[in-house]
Amino acid sequence: MPRTIAPRSSDTCRSHCPVNFVLETFGDKWTLLIIRDLMFKGKTTYGEFLQSAERIATNILANRLQRLAEHGIIEKAFLPTNRSVPHYALTQRGKDLLPVMIEITAWSARHDPVTNTPGSFLEAYERDRDALLTQLREQIHGTAPTD
Amino acid sequence: MPRTIAPRSSDTCRSHCPVNFVLETFGDKWTLLIIRDLMFKGKTTYGEFLQSAERIATNILANRLQRLAEHGIIEKAFLPTNRSVPHYALTQRGKDLLPVMIEITAWSARHDPVTNTPGSFLEAYERDRDALLTQLREQIHGTAPTD
Repeated sequence: MPRTIAPRSSDTCRSHCPVNFVLETFGDKWTLLIIRDLMFKGKTTYGEFLQSAERIATNILANRLQRLAEHGIIEKAFLPTNRSVPHYALTQRGKDLLPVMIEITAWSARHDPVTNTPGSFLEAYERDRDALLTQLREQIHGTAPTD
Repeated sequence: MPRTIAPRSSDTCRSHCPVNFVLETFGDKWTLLIIRDLMFKGKTTYGEFLQSAERIATNILANRLQRLAEHGIIEKAFLPTNRSVPHYALTQRGKDLLPVMIEITAWSARHDPVTNTPGSFLEAYERDRDALLTQLREQIHGTAPTD
Protein backbone atom coordinates (compact mmCIF):
# COMPACT_ATOMS: atom_id res chain seq x y z
CA MET A 1 0.00 0.00 0.00
CA PRO A 2 1.39 3.40 -0.89
CA ARG A 3 1.68 5.96 1.86
CA THR A 4 -0.89 8.65 1.27
CA ILE A 5 0.19 12.12 2.27
CA ALA A 6 -2.53 14.59 3.15
CA PRO A 7 -2.70 17.65 0.94
CA ARG A 8 -0.89 20.62 2.42
CA SER A 9 -3.08 23.20 4.03
CA SER A 10 -3.82 25.85 1.45
CA ASP A 11 -3.77 28.63 4.04
CA THR A 12 -0.34 29.73 2.93
CA CYS A 13 -1.59 30.73 -0.55
CA ARG A 14 -1.34 34.39 -1.45
CA SER A 15 -4.93 34.27 -2.64
CA HIS A 16 -7.61 31.68 -3.24
CA CYS A 17 -8.22 32.76 -6.76
CA PRO A 18 -8.46 29.42 -8.63
CA VAL A 19 -5.71 30.30 -11.09
CA ASN A 20 -3.37 31.29 -8.28
CA PHE A 21 -4.17 28.13 -6.33
CA VAL A 22 -3.02 25.94 -9.21
CA LEU A 23 0.14 27.97 -9.65
CA GLU A 24 1.00 27.82 -5.96
CA THR A 25 0.36 24.08 -5.98
CA PHE A 26 2.56 23.50 -9.01
CA GLY A 27 5.24 25.89 -7.89
CA ASP A 28 6.93 26.10 -11.24
CA LYS A 29 7.36 24.51 -14.64
CA TRP A 30 9.31 21.53 -13.34
CA THR A 31 6.38 20.23 -11.33
CA LEU A 32 4.15 20.22 -14.38
CA LEU A 33 6.81 18.36 -16.38
CA ILE A 34 6.94 15.67 -13.69
CA ILE A 35 3.13 15.38 -13.88
CA ARG A 36 3.44 15.05 -17.67
CA ASP A 37 6.00 12.26 -17.29
CA LEU A 38 3.75 10.39 -14.86
CA MET A 39 0.58 10.97 -16.87
CA PHE A 40 1.67 10.38 -20.44
CA LYS A 41 5.14 8.86 -20.51
CA GLY A 42 4.81 5.96 -18.10
CA LYS A 43 7.72 7.22 -16.00
CA THR A 44 7.59 6.43 -12.30
CA THR A 45 11.13 6.62 -10.90
CA TYR A 46 13.61 9.34 -10.06
CA GLY A 47 16.02 7.95 -12.66
CA GLU A 48 13.39 8.04 -15.37
CA PHE A 49 12.39 11.65 -14.62
CA LEU A 50 16.05 12.68 -14.86
CA GLN A 51 16.26 11.36 -18.40
CA SER A 52 13.58 13.63 -19.87
CA ALA A 53 14.61 16.00 -22.64
CA GLU A 54 14.33 19.10 -20.46
CA ARG A 55 17.22 17.87 -18.25
CA ILE A 56 15.89 18.63 -14.80
CA ALA A 57 18.67 18.99 -12.18
CA THR A 58 18.79 16.36 -9.44
CA ASN A 59 18.25 18.81 -6.57
CA ILE A 60 15.30 20.42 -8.32
CA LEU A 61 13.77 17.03 -9.07
CA ALA A 62 14.05 15.88 -5.44
CA ASN A 63 12.54 19.16 -4.23
CA ARG A 64 9.64 19.10 -6.67
CA LEU A 65 8.77 15.46 -5.95
CA GLN A 66 8.62 16.35 -2.27
CA ARG A 67 6.48 19.40 -3.03
CA LEU A 68 4.04 17.44 -5.20
CA ALA A 69 3.70 14.80 -2.47
CA GLU A 70 3.07 17.48 0.15
CA HIS A 71 0.31 18.89 -2.02
CA GLY A 72 -1.28 15.48 -2.46
CA ILE A 73 -0.71 15.37 -6.22
CA ILE A 74 1.58 12.33 -6.19
CA GLU A 75 2.34 9.49 -3.79
CA LYS A 76 5.34 7.28 -3.29
CA ALA A 77 5.31 3.49 -3.08
CA PHE A 78 7.78 0.60 -3.21
CA LEU A 79 7.40 -2.62 -5.17
CA PRO A 80 7.32 -5.66 -2.85
CA THR A 81 10.26 -7.08 -4.82
CA ASN A 82 12.44 -3.97 -4.51
CA ARG A 83 12.39 -1.81 -1.41
CA SER A 84 15.21 0.45 -2.53
CA VAL A 85 13.70 2.22 -5.55
CA PRO A 86 10.63 4.37 -4.88
CA HIS A 87 7.95 4.53 -7.55
CA TYR A 88 5.80 7.61 -7.83
CA ALA A 89 2.17 7.70 -8.98
CA LEU A 90 -0.47 10.36 -9.43
CA THR A 91 -3.17 10.50 -6.77
CA GLN A 92 -6.80 11.10 -7.82
CA ARG A 93 -6.15 14.79 -7.25
CA GLY A 94 -3.21 14.53 -9.65
CA LYS A 95 -5.13 12.52 -12.24
CA ASP A 96 -7.82 15.19 -12.18
CA LEU A 97 -5.30 17.48 -13.89
CA LEU A 98 -5.81 15.56 -17.14
CA PRO A 99 -8.14 18.17 -18.72
CA VAL A 100 -5.61 20.91 -17.91
CA MET A 101 -2.84 18.90 -19.57
CA ILE A 102 -5.00 18.19 -22.63
CA GLU A 103 -5.79 21.88 -23.13
CA ILE A 104 -2.13 22.82 -22.68
CA THR A 105 -1.20 20.23 -25.30
CA ALA A 106 -3.86 21.41 -27.74
CA TRP A 107 -2.75 25.04 -27.38
CA SER A 108 0.88 24.14 -28.06
CA ALA A 109 -0.02 21.88 -30.96
CA ARG A 110 -1.70 24.89 -32.60
CA HIS A 111 0.79 27.59 -31.67
CA ASP A 112 4.24 25.98 -31.68
CA PRO A 113 5.32 25.74 -35.32
CA VAL A 114 7.79 22.96 -34.48
CA THR A 115 5.71 21.13 -31.88
CA ASN A 116 6.41 17.45 -31.35
CA THR A 117 2.76 16.77 -30.52
CA PRO A 118 1.58 13.91 -32.75
CA GLY A 119 -0.80 15.16 -35.46
CA SER A 120 -3.22 12.44 -34.39
CA PHE A 121 -3.67 14.17 -31.03
CA LEU A 122 -4.98 17.44 -32.47
CA GLU A 123 -7.16 15.54 -34.94
CA ALA A 124 -8.72 13.49 -32.14
CA TYR A 125 -9.11 16.61 -29.98
CA GLU A 126 -10.86 18.58 -32.69
CA ARG A 127 -13.06 15.67 -33.76
CA ASP A 128 -14.32 14.78 -30.28
CA ARG A 129 -12.62 16.22 -27.20
CA ASP A 130 -14.87 14.35 -24.78
CA ALA A 131 -14.06 10.98 -26.37
CA LEU A 132 -10.33 11.76 -26.24
CA LEU A 133 -10.65 12.73 -22.59
CA THR A 134 -12.46 9.49 -21.77
CA GLN A 135 -9.88 7.43 -23.62
CA LEU A 136 -6.93 9.11 -21.89
CA ARG A 137 -8.64 8.92 -18.51
CA GLU A 138 -9.02 5.15 -18.91
CA GLN A 139 -5.37 4.84 -19.86
CA ILE A 140 -4.26 6.82 -16.84
CA HIS A 141 -6.41 4.84 -14.45
CA GLY A 142 -5.50 1.55 -16.04
CA THR A 143 -1.76 1.99 -15.77
CA ALA A 144 -1.50 3.74 -12.43
CA PRO A 145 0.29 1.44 -9.97
CA THR A 146 -1.93 2.53 -7.09
CA ASP A 147 -5.21 1.53 -8.68
CA MET B 1 -3.94 50.48 -34.01
CA PRO B 2 -1.99 48.41 -31.53
CA ARG B 3 1.53 47.45 -32.39
CA THR B 4 1.64 43.73 -33.04
CA ILE B 5 4.79 41.99 -31.92
CA ALA B 6 5.73 38.79 -33.71
CA PRO B 7 5.92 35.71 -31.49
CA ARG B 8 9.44 34.92 -30.36
CA SER B 9 11.14 32.12 -32.21
CA SER B 10 10.59 28.93 -30.27
CA ASP B 11 14.04 27.61 -31.13
CA THR B 12 15.33 28.41 -27.68
CA CYS B 13 12.96 25.94 -25.99
CA ARG B 14 14.55 23.03 -24.17
CA SER B 15 12.16 20.69 -25.95
CA HIS B 16 9.12 20.94 -28.18
CA CYS B 17 7.04 18.76 -25.99
CA PRO B 18 3.70 20.62 -25.90
CA VAL B 19 3.63 20.85 -22.12
CA ASN B 20 7.14 22.26 -22.02
CA PHE B 21 6.33 24.76 -24.78
CA VAL B 22 3.53 26.27 -22.72
CA LEU B 23 5.72 26.43 -19.63
CA GLU B 24 8.57 28.10 -21.48
CA THR B 25 6.12 30.57 -22.98
CA PHE B 26 4.56 31.42 -19.64
CA GLY B 27 7.84 31.47 -17.80
CA ASP B 28 6.32 31.33 -14.36
CA LYS B 29 3.20 31.82 -12.31
CA TRP B 30 3.21 35.60 -12.65
CA THR B 31 2.63 35.48 -16.39
CA LEU B 32 -0.44 33.31 -15.95
CA LEU B 33 -1.81 35.67 -13.32
CA ILE B 34 -1.44 38.58 -15.76
CA ILE B 35 -3.33 36.55 -18.37
CA ARG B 36 -6.04 35.88 -15.79
CA ASP B 37 -6.33 39.61 -15.03
CA LEU B 38 -6.64 40.41 -18.75
CA MET B 39 -9.04 37.57 -19.49
CA PHE B 40 -11.43 37.61 -16.55
CA LYS B 41 -10.93 40.77 -14.51
CA GLY B 42 -11.04 43.46 -17.16
CA LYS B 43 -7.64 44.81 -16.13
CA THR B 44 -5.56 46.39 -18.87
CA THR B 45 -3.00 48.71 -17.25
CA TYR B 46 0.20 48.33 -15.28
CA GLY B 47 -1.41 50.03 -12.30
CA GLU B 48 -4.37 47.66 -12.34
CA PHE B 49 -2.17 44.54 -12.50
CA LEU B 50 -0.21 45.81 -9.49
CA GLN B 51 -3.37 45.93 -7.40
CA SER B 52 -4.18 42.22 -7.66
CA ALA B 53 -4.34 40.22 -4.44
CA GLU B 54 -1.12 38.34 -5.17
CA ARG B 55 0.91 41.57 -4.95
CA ILE B 56 3.22 41.21 -7.92
CA ALA B 57 6.41 43.29 -7.59
CA THR B 58 6.86 46.17 -10.03
CA ASN B 59 10.06 44.81 -11.59
CA ILE B 60 8.56 41.36 -12.06
CA LEU B 61 5.41 42.84 -13.61
CA ALA B 62 7.41 44.91 -16.11
CA ASN B 63 9.53 41.90 -17.02
CA ARG B 64 6.59 39.55 -17.48
CA LEU B 65 4.61 42.04 -19.60
CA GLN B 66 7.65 42.32 -21.85
CA ARG B 67 8.00 38.55 -21.99
CA LEU B 68 4.32 38.00 -22.83
CA ALA B 69 4.55 40.58 -25.60
CA GLU B 70 7.69 38.92 -27.00
CA HIS B 71 5.83 35.63 -27.10
CA GLY B 72 2.88 37.18 -28.91
CA ILE B 73 0.42 36.53 -26.07
CA ILE B 74 -0.36 40.18 -25.37
CA GLU B 75 0.00 43.47 -27.22
CA LYS B 76 0.31 47.04 -26.07
CA ALA B 77 -1.76 49.97 -27.34
CA PHE B 78 -2.50 53.56 -26.35
CA LEU B 79 -5.88 55.23 -26.24
CA PRO B 80 -6.06 58.17 -28.69
CA THR B 81 -7.04 60.38 -25.75
CA ASN B 82 -4.12 59.39 -23.53
CA ARG B 83 -0.71 58.59 -24.97
CA SER B 84 0.99 58.19 -21.60
CA VAL B 85 -0.73 55.09 -20.18
CA PRO B 86 -0.30 51.88 -22.18
CA HIS B 87 -3.19 49.43 -22.26
CA TYR B 88 -2.50 45.74 -22.70
CA ALA B 89 -4.75 43.24 -24.48
CA LEU B 90 -4.63 39.54 -25.25
CA THR B 91 -3.81 38.64 -28.85
CA GLN B 92 -5.70 35.80 -30.52
CA ARG B 93 -2.88 33.51 -29.38
CA GLY B 94 -3.51 34.72 -25.83
CA LYS B 95 -7.28 34.40 -26.07
CA ASP B 96 -6.81 30.82 -27.22
CA LEU B 97 -5.62 30.04 -23.69
CA LEU B 98 -9.23 30.29 -22.46
CA PRO B 99 -9.78 26.48 -22.32
CA VAL B 100 -6.57 26.09 -20.28
CA MET B 101 -7.75 28.76 -17.85
CA ILE B 102 -11.20 27.16 -17.56
CA GLU B 103 -9.74 23.76 -16.71
CA ILE B 104 -7.36 25.30 -14.18
CA THR B 105 -10.31 27.06 -12.58
CA ALA B 106 -12.44 23.90 -12.50
CA TRP B 107 -9.61 21.89 -10.91
CA SER B 108 -9.11 24.49 -8.18
CA ALA B 109 -12.82 24.85 -7.57
CA ARG B 110 -12.91 21.12 -6.81
CA HIS B 111 -9.67 20.78 -4.89
CA ASP B 112 -9.17 24.00 -2.93
CA PRO B 113 -11.42 23.78 0.13
CA VAL B 114 -11.40 27.56 0.52
CA THR B 115 -11.52 28.51 -3.17
CA ASN B 116 -13.00 31.85 -4.07
CA THR B 117 -14.33 30.49 -7.37
CA PRO B 118 -18.05 31.34 -7.56
CA GLY B 119 -20.19 28.22 -7.11
CA SER B 120 -22.04 29.18 -10.28
CA PHE B 121 -18.86 28.57 -12.30
CA LEU B 122 -18.52 24.91 -11.33
CA GLU B 123 -22.25 24.38 -11.78
CA ALA B 124 -22.14 25.84 -15.30
CA TYR B 125 -18.96 23.86 -16.08
CA GLU B 126 -20.45 20.55 -14.98
CA ARG B 127 -23.78 21.18 -16.64
CA ASP B 128 -22.40 22.12 -20.07
CA ARG B 129 -18.71 22.91 -20.47
CA ASP B 130 -19.05 23.72 -24.17
CA ALA B 131 -21.78 26.28 -23.53
CA LEU B 132 -19.69 27.89 -20.78
CA LEU B 133 -16.69 28.04 -23.11
CA THR B 134 -18.76 29.68 -25.85
CA GLN B 135 -20.19 32.22 -23.44
CA LEU B 136 -16.78 33.16 -22.02
CA ARG B 137 -15.22 33.28 -25.48
CA GLU B 138 -17.85 35.81 -26.57
CA GLN B 139 -17.19 37.90 -23.48
CA ILE B 140 -13.45 37.90 -24.09
CA HIS B 141 -13.79 38.84 -27.73
CA GLY B 142 -16.47 41.42 -26.99
CA THR B 143 -14.47 43.32 -24.41
CA ALA B 144 -10.99 43.15 -25.88
CA PRO B 145 -9.86 46.64 -26.91
CA THR B 146 -8.15 45.32 -30.03
CA ASP B 147 -11.28 43.77 -31.55
